[in-house]
Formats: sequence, structure tokens, C-alpha cells
Amino acid sequence: GPAPSPPPVEQPTISCLVCLDSVATIHTSGRSLCSTTCGHVFCSTCISEVVKQRKQCPVCRKRLTKKQYHPLFI
Amino acid sequence: GPAPSPPPVEQPTISCLVCLDSVATIHTSGRSLCSTTCGHVFCSTCISEVVKQRKQCPVCRKRLTKKQYHPLFI
Ligand SMILES: [Zn+2]
Ligand SMILES: [Zn+2]
Ligand SMILES: [Zn+2]
Ligand SMILES: [Zn+2]
Repeated sequence: GPAPSPPPVEQPTISCLVCLDSVATIHTSGRSLCSTTCGHVFCSTCISEVVKQRKQCPVCRKRLTKKQYHPLFI
Repeated sequence: GPAPSPPPVEQPTISCLVCLDSVATIHTSGRSLCSTTCGHVFCSTCISEVVKQRKQCPVCRKRLTKKQYHPLFI
């Protein structure tokens, strides 16, 4: 029979790396998605907490102020 | 009967805004995903072209040099 097609490659579900909410949940709850310039993704609520309290990226510990993140439109 | 549950909210498929390849395709082909600081997402191949030729974001026309984009780890 025909060669089996390769398994579909999973598309990653994007979620905030602190609260783990998915993009859909983040949007429907009125929050926005943000990325740090070190490339890690958080929701707007969690990232403003991190910037206020820890001032470093929870994932890679790079310095994190309000200059080092931006909205992410996906 | 029980109230119908709300329709599942679609999770967005992330893709490069120039070549439209999905994240999975981008990764399996050895490219990486990048975000501009204006929040728009491209694959590493397309964004280096844009920076070399147009120097502005194809989506929102903001100035785009190698300082205004970074890898995106999703
Ligand atoms: Zn969060
Ligand atoms: Zn980080
Ligand atoms: Zn591309
Ligand atoms: Zn843009």
C-alpha cells in the first residue's frame, strides 16, 4: 500500500511560563501575551509582577525591566 | 439536557508572517522562530532578509534592524 505519511508534527501550544494559561485563556480573560527580549513568553499580569518583584526572567534569569519585554501578537 | 459547553477557543497556530510556514515546519527545517520588538513573528530566514533589504517590519512598518528582533522560544 502507499507509504505511511509521517506523523503530524505537533504545533506547540503557547502558554504563560508562570501561570501556564494558554494564549486563548489569556486573551479571553482580557490579558495580553508578552515576550521578553530573551525570548520567553508570559502573560501581561505575570510579567508585570516579575518586573516589579524579581527583575529577572524566571526562565533564564537575565535582567528583566520594562525595557526588556514587549507585546506579542499571535 | 445539560447546558452545551461553550465551543473550545481555538489556539492560534504560530507561523512566519512572510513565508507562512508553521512553527513545526520552521523548526524541522532547521530555522528558528524570531519576534520583533514590535511583536511580530517571523522565521530566522525571512527576518534576516527583511533587515538586509527593507529595514522595516513588513506588518507595521516600524524600523527594523538586527537590534529590534530576538529569538522566540516556544
Ligand atoms: Zn501568566
Ligand atoms: Zn528569559
Ligand atoms: Zn519565514
Ligand atoms: Zn511590526
